[in-house]
Amino acid sequence: MDFSSKLLENAVHEMSQLPGIGKRTALRLVLHLLKQPSEQTTRLSESLEKLRGEIKFCNSCHNISDVELCEICASPKRDESLVCVVEDIRDVMAIENTGQYKGLYHVLGGKISPMEGVGPHDLTITSLIGKAKLGQIKELIFALSSTMEGDTTNFYIYKQLEGLDISTSTIARGVAVGDELEYADEVTLGRSIINRIPFEGSLKAN
Amino acid sequence: MDFSSKLLENAVHEMSQLPGIGKRTALRLVLHLLKQPSEQTTRLSESLEKLRGEIKFCNSCHNISDVELCEICASPKRDESLVCVVEDIRDVMAIENTGQYKGLYHVLGGKISPMEGVGPHDLTITSLIGKAKLGQIKELIFALSSTMEGDTTNFYIYKQLEGLDISTSTIARGVAVGDELEYADEVTLGRSIINRIPFEGSLKAN
Repeated sequence: MDFSSKLLENAVHEMSQLPGIGKRTALRLVLHLLKQPSEQTTRLSESLEKLRGEIKFCNSCHNISDVELCEICASPKRDESLVCVVEDIRDVMAIENTGQYKGLYHVLGGKISPMEGVGPHDLTITSLIGKAKLGQIKELIFALSSTMEGDTTNFYIYKQLEGLDISTSTIARGVAVGDELEYADEVTLGRSIINRIPFEGSLKAN
Repeated sequence: MDFSSKLLENAVHEMSQLPGIGKRTALRLVLHLLKQPSEQTTRLSESLEKLRGEIKFCNSCHNISDVELCEICASPKRDESLVCVVEDIRDVMAIENTGQYKGLYHVLGGKISPMEGVGPHDLTITSLIGKAKLGQIKELIFALSSTMEGDTTNFYIYKQLEGLDISTSTIARGVAVGDELEYADEVTLGRSIINRIPFEGSLKAN
């Protein structure tokens, strides 16, 4: 791509560094900004700079937060004996949206993945084990994605918890509510059957 | 979407103002920036700010440029008697990429579109007619998209040129090189046949 302007070229280049945004899309976005009042560009770039410069991570659960201890960890209404282990903030947001969970979270920041060079020490596992050893946590819910990396991470944490009086669980996998059985993939449907729950239990959930 | 951080929420909100980027995508992009070195965010926001603040439009063709007169208009190698009328900079880049065009451009900045409230005076038509009246231009090539708005704009300019000794043409529409006839749409194929060119002429183009 040949640009008539170095400024434009730079902006398009930087924009196309974002994941899933190619040169053409970047050009479209940048030209859009040029057509808008300049305040919009200022607001965008300032909000990004401010976020990158001032963002904090909660000391306890490592979720993104504006303060040292995030709202969820600081809330007296949450059950401190229950901790849900998730990969990143998007999982926290998804679970919070359900309104079904009253425990705390622990954000790992990723999964153990030797292929991508992510080891246990790149994640916040040590901090989690440290919290577990304080004795306040009664149950740990693993809510990582069910990939090989997710399973490995779950198992690594599980082994580290040996000797501590903490029960562990994973979120239920199964056919989504409202889905037709015939369209569910085999692995999911298989797990749904193996991990079937007592009918009385399913009534309570509704 | 409930965010645990006001900074994050702001950044996601501003990012999702870009066309085709929803809240979820915006969150993904912003979280990506957070995982990268902070220099990347700085580079992105500075390049956008700099572009928005310092960008110039060529005095003659109204293309985006770093200087008062863009490279193409300033080049002594270009044929000043030939002007191609396009909608925006992306069209200039597309035509320049072909390496087949040695004339100048005129960037309108849009098309006349009563539906979107764009009238002739929102575009750079007056400047184009002004240039035409100087007598240097011999041919005007209309290269707007072949929509109703494009046709309207072409016709509006054409009427304004009455009395001036300037020939006008539009770029050829037809079946794309390498395309199979059976998959071409009817309008395009129809135009291809109506606007057929002498066989000797087609040999020259190759």
